[in-house]
Amino acid sequence: MTINTAPFPTRALPLRLNALLLGTALGFAANQAGAVPVTWDEIQHDQHNTDSVLGYGIGPKAQRYSPMTAINRESVRKLVPAWSFSFGDEKQRGQESQALVHDGVIYVTASYSRLFAIDARTGKQLWSYTHRLPADIRPCCDVVNRGAAIFGDNIYFGTLDASIVALNKDTGKVAWKKKFEDHSAGYTMTGAPTIIKDQNSGRVMLIHGSSGDEFGVVGKLYARDTETGEEIWMRPFVEGHMGRLHGKDSTPTGDPRAPSWPDDADSATGKVEAWSHGGGAPWQSASFDVASNTLIVGAGNPAPWNTWKRTSAGGDPQDYDSLYTSGQVALDPSTGEVKWFYQHTPNDAWDFSGNNELVLFEYDDNGNTIKATGHADRNGFFYVVNRENGDFIRGFPFVDNITWASHIDAASGRPVEVAGQRPPKPKPGEERGEAVEVSPPFLGGKNWNPMAYSQDTGLFYVPANHWKEDYWTEEVNYSKGNAYLGQGFRIKRMFDDHVGILRAIDPKTGKIAWEHKEKLPLWAGVLATKGGLVFTGTGDGYLKAFDSNSGEELWRFQTGSGIVSSPITWEMDGEQYIGIASGYGGAVPLWGGDMAVLTKPVPQGGSFWAFKLADFQ
Amino acid sequence: MTINTAPFPTRALPLRLNALLLGTALGFAANQAGAVPVTWDEIQHDQHNTDSVLGYGIGPKAQRYSPMTAINRESVRKLVPAWSFSFGDEKQRGQESQALVHDGVIYVTASYSRLFAIDARTGKQLWSYTHRLPADIRPCCDVVNRGAAIFGDNIYFGTLDASIVALNKDTGKVAWKKKFEDHSAGYTMTGAPTIIKDQNSGRVMLIHGSSGDEFGVVGKLYARDTETGEEIWMRPFVEGHMGRLHGKDSTPTGDPRAPSWPDDADSATGKVEAWSHGGGAPWQSASFDVASNTLIVGAGNPAPWNTWKRTSAGGDPQDYDSLYTSGQVALDPSTGEVKWFYQHTPNDAWDFSGNNELVLFEYDDNGNTIKATGHADRNGFFYVVNRENGDFIRGFPFVDNITWASHIDAASGRPVEVAGQRPPKPKPGEERGEAVEVSPPFLGGKNWNPMAYSQDTGLFYVPANHWKEDYWTEEVNYSKGNAYLGQGFRIKRMFDDHVGILRAIDPKTGKIAWEHKEKLPLWAGVLATKGGLVFTGTGDGYLKAFDSNSGEELWRFQTGSGIVSSPITWEMDGEQYIGIASGYGGAVPLWGGDMAVLTKPVPQGGSFWAFKLADFQ
Repeated sequence: MTINTAPFPTRALPLRLNALLLGTALGFAANQAGAVPVTWDEIQHDQHNTDSVLGYGIGPKAQRYSPMTAINRESVRKLVPAWSFSFGDEKQRGQESQALVHDGVIYVTASYSRLFAIDARTGKQLWSYTHRLPADIRPCCDVVNRGAAIFGDNIYFGTLDASIVALNKDTGKVAWKKKFEDHSAGYTMTGAPTIIKDQNSGRVMLIHGSSGDEFGVVGKLYARDTETGEEIWMRPFVEGHMGRLHGKDSTPTGDPRAPSWPDDADSATGKVEAWSHGGGAPWQSASFDVASNTLIVGAGNPAPWNTWKRTSAGGDPQDYDSLYTSGQVALDPSTGEVKWFYQHTPNDAWDFSGNNELVLFEYDDNGNTIKATGHADRNGFFYVVNRENGDFIRGFPFVDNITWASHIDAASGRPVEVAGQRPPKPKPGEERGEAVEVSPPFLGGKNWNPMAYSQDTGLFYVPANHWKEDYWTEEVNYSKGNAYLGQGFRIKRMFDDHVGILRAIDPKTGKIAWEHKEKLPLWAGVLATKGGLVFTGTGDGYLKAFDSNSGEELWRFQTGSGIVSSPITWEMDGEQYIGIASGYGGAVPLWGGDMAVLTKPVPQGGSFWAFKLADFQ
Repeated sequence: MTINTAPFPTRALPLRLNALLLGTALGFAANQAGAVPVTWDEIQHDQHNTDSVLGYGIGPKAQRYSPMTAINRESVRKLVPAWSFSFGDEKQRGQESQALVHDGVIYVTASYSRLFAIDARTGKQLWSYTHRLPADIRPCCDVVNRGAAIFGDNIYFGTLDASIVALNKDTGKVAWKKKFEDHSAGYTMTGAPTIIKDQNSGRVMLIHGSSGDEFGVVGKLYARDTETGEEIWMRPFVEGHMGRLHGKDSTPTGDPRAPSWPDDADSATGKVEAWSHGGGAPWQSASFDVASNTLIVGAGNPAPWNTWKRTSAGGDPQDYDSLYTSGQVALDPSTGEVKWFYQHTPNDAWDFSGNNELVLFEYDDNGNTIKATGHADRNGFFYVVNRENGDFIRGFPFVDNITWASHIDAASGRPVEVAGQRPPKPKPGEERGEAVEVSPPFLGGKNWNPMAYSQDTGLFYVPANHWKEDYWTEEVNYSKGNAYLGQGFRIKRMFDDHVGILRAIDPKTGKIAWEHKEKLPLWAGVLATKGGLVFTGTGDGYLKAFDSNSGEELWRFQTGSGIVSSPITWEMDGEQYIGIASGYGGAVPLWGGDMAVLTKPVPQGGSFWAFKLADFQ
C-alpha cells in the first residue's frame, strides 16, 4: 500500500499524541473522536495533509487535488463502498455538500440547514444539528448547503435563514449563532464559509458571503471572529455602497458616485432603483492566497437580470458595467478593502454571475512563474487572470456554441459581444420582450459545482454542460421578498446525445485534452488525485473515476439518487478513502425547463458514502 | 462459480426463449425487461428457482431458504454492494418490504404505499407507483408495507387505505384496484398478498387479509380473481360472523352462537360489544400447502386488548377463548371454509396476536415424516403443529423469562397461565388498573419479521427480542376510528447488554444451537442459504451474515439507516445477489417506550441495496 508522503509535515499526528498523553488531564478520553483542535497550519496545508480535509476546495487554493496514490488507475477497479449514512428526517432534495474530515470524524452538511458528524470508520452518527428554519425563507435554487468550515474546537456553516452557526465539533453544541441579514428580503446562505489567517495581524478569521441576488439583495462579504462570531469587516459588491470595519463605516466600494450604475435624478439616492438592490452576492466560497495575503472570491450577478434596468434611458449597456458584479474580486483580509477586480461579464444581461470558484494555480511561462486564478464562468469562457494584479491573461471557450460573445478581447479583457443577444425591451404595449436564443443559458456553461486542477497533468477538469435557453425581458419593480429578475426563460437541449460534458482543459492553450459526455446535466464537483484519477458524480447517481490523462471511465458505482455534491479523499488507518454525498436536487429540477423533465425520473435521496479498496485477498 | 442446480425445472428459461422468438409478433422488444408472464408453476417452485423471487416467504412454504451456494461461508467476505436505489420523495419511515425478482426486474414496495420496479442489473428505476392516500388513514404501527405478489402480467400490493392494487408489472399501469373495507374505521393493509392455485378448481387466486385490530375491525381473509380483483370468498376470524362465497353468505365461522365470546342480553346482537369488533385480522401473509390444498395463516389479537371486555361479568377469562383470534387457521381455498384452528393464546390479554408467519416444514420422527407448521409466537413460545389436522405437537420457549405462562400443556396444547398476569380491572373509582409486569411485552418475543428454516441444518433462525412491559387496563368503549385497546403499557429493557437476539433453534427439541445478541431490537426478516449462511438486518443499519452452524458473524455492511425488512437472494448472469431494503421505522420507534429512546439516534432512510461477490481478481 502506497500513500504519498506529504511534502509538508502534518500536524495531526503530533497533536493526536498530545491528546493521548494529556487525555485524562484535559478531561476527555484519549480515544474520544474529534477531541483534537484544528490549527491554521493544518488548514493552510490541507491539500497535503492526507489524513484530513479541512476546507471547501481542499486547501486555500481550492484546487481539489490530492497527493494520494493508493487508489490509482490500476487499483480503482477494487474500489467498493465501505459504508453509507442516511441523513434521515424525511428531508431530501439537493445534497450539494463537500464533507470535511478531521481526526476520524466526517462533518457533512445536508439539505434544510443540517450538519452531521459521523464516525469515519463505521458510518455511525456521533451527533447532528438541525437548524430551526422559519417558514418564510427564500432560497432561489433549492434548500441546499455546500459545506462547512472548521477551526479550533468549532465547525461553522451557513443556514437558509441568513445565519451562520458555530458548533462545538466534538459535541455539536452551539458555540454561537449570528443572523447577518433579513431572510425575508431574500438573503440566504448556501455556500461553505472559509477559514483564513490574516498574515498582517496573525488573526484567524471566518469569511463568508450570502445568496439572494434573485431577490435584489446587496451582495456582501463578511469577516468574523472565529470565537465569538463578531463581525470584523463587511464589504458590499455594488459600487458606491459603504463597507464596514470594526462596526464603523469604512470605505465605499469603488467610486462613491458609482458611475457604473445610471443616475436617476428623481430618486432619493440619485441612482436608479436597481443600484439599491444591485446583487453581486458572493454566494460561493473564497479562495485565499497566503503568500500575498489576498482573498479572492466571485461576485454574483447584478440585480435585476434585466439589462435595461441597469442602463440609462436610451443608453448603451456597455457604458454601465454594474460593478462589482459578475466578476472576481481580490480583497485585503485585514480591512476588507478591494485590491483588484476583474469583470467577466460587464452589465451582465444573462445572469451569468461571476460566482464560480477561483482556483489558484501557478504555471511556467518561458521561465517565469505566473501566479494566476483559473475560473470557468457561467458565460462559457475560461479565464486565466494574474492574481497579483487582476490583469487579464487569456480567456477561451470551454463549451461549444457560445452565442452572446465571439471572444474575449486580448487587449482589454472585455468580451466582444454579439449584437442582439441582450434580450430586448418589450415593445410598447407588450408585457414581454421578444425572446432571443442564448447559449450558455443562465444555468451556465458550468455552474457552482467546482472543477479540479491537477498538479501532475497541468489540466483543469471542468464539469460543464451544453444547453441553451429562450430569454425574454419582462417589466419588474423591486418589491421586498419577491423575485427581482425582469426576465423570463426556458432552458432547452443543445445536443441529442448529451447535456453534461466533463472536459480536461489546458489553461495555457485552451486545448481540450479529453472530454466525457453525460446524458444528464453535470452538477457535481470534481476531485483530481496524484493516483491519476479524476472523480465526479452524475445526475443519474453514479460516482465515477476517470483516467486523468485519457478520460477513460475506469470505475463507477450507483449510489441510488443523483449526485450533485463534491467528492473528497482522505487517509485513515493506512487506507485511502473516497467520500461523497448523494441526493438529487438543486437548480436544475427547479428551473431547468427541458432539463427538469429529463431529470424527473431521478429519485431524491440523502446519504453520505465512503469508499475504499477492497482489502480481502 | 457454483450455483446449485434446482431440483425442479425452472420455467423462466423456456419462457424467455419464447419471448426471444416471438418478441416482434408479441409487440415488445425481445430484450424488454419484465415482459415474461409469471406462471403458477414458477411460484410453486419459487424456493428452487434461483433466478427469481416470486412470493413473500420465498415459496409457498415460507421457509426463506435458498439452495444457492456461490455466496458461502468462505466467499461471503468478498460480498460488496453492487448498487443502491433511493426511494426518494422526501418520504422515509419504516421500510419493511421483502422484494420480488423476476426476469431481471426487482419489485420492491416502500413506505406510504409505494411500489418501485428497478432494473436488477443497474439499479435504475423502470417505473414507480405511488398510491394516493387519504388523510384519515389509521395505520397503527407506521406507514409500512411488507411486499407484493406477482402473477401473469400483474404485480399486486395492499395499501394503507384498505385497498389492493394490481399493476401491470412491465409498465406500472393500474390493471385494477379494489377497496375492500372502510379505512376510516381503521382497516389498512400492510402485509404482502399471496398467490395460490386451488388444487380442486385449478383456479389461481390472490389471497390477502387486512390490519386494524387496534381499532376494532373484524379480521377477514379474502380470495380474489387475479385478473379482475373480484372477490371469490371472504372468511371472518371472529366466531359466529358470516363468511361469503361468490358474493353470497356462505357459512358462519365456527359456532354461529359464538360461545367463545360472552352473551349480552341487553345488546341487539345478543353478544358483548367486543364481539362486533373482535379483531383477529390476518395482517401477515398466508402460507400454502399445495399437497393438501390448504391455506394456513395467523389470526390477529382479539379486540379490545382488555381481557375483561371479552369475559362475562365475574366470569373466568379461560372460559372465553375469543375464537378465532391469536391462533393459526387452516382454510380450504375452494370455499374459504376453516379446516382447523389452533389457538396459541386463548382469550389473549396481552396483544400477543397469532399473526406471525407459519413456516411449513417436514421432519422425521422415528421414520415417519411429520408435516408441520413452525411458528414463533409473540407470546414467547415456539409451536410445532401438525399441519394436516391442527394437532399440537410441541411448544417451547424461544426467549428467556416468559412470565405469563409456565409452559404449554402437552396434552391439551393450551398454555398453563401464571396467576396475576392478566392485567386486572381498575378498582372501583379508579381510571386504570394496577400495572403488572409482563414478558414478552405486546411487541412480542418475536414480531412480524419472519424467521428462516434451513433444510440443511434443520434449524429455525428466529429474530427474537428480550424486553418486557408494564401493563394496565383502562376503560374503553368502541368508537369508530378510535383506538380500541382498553389497556396501557410501557415497554422496558430486560437485559443491559442486548435487546435483539437471533437464535438458531431445533424444532424437534427446542434446543438453542446458537444465539447472537444485538444492542437494538431485531425487526428484520431472516434468510438462510445452502451456502451455510444466515442473513438478517439490524436496527443500527447493518446487513449481517452468520455461519448457519456456529452463529459466527462472518460479514456485515452498514447501509446508513436501520434495517427492518427481509433479505432475498437471486441469481443473475451467473452471479448470486443478496437484496434488502434499508430504512428505519415500524412499531418500535412509535410504541417502544425505552426502546423508542434507544433507537432515536437511528436515522430514517429509504433505499434498496443489491450485493454480490466482488468480481475483480
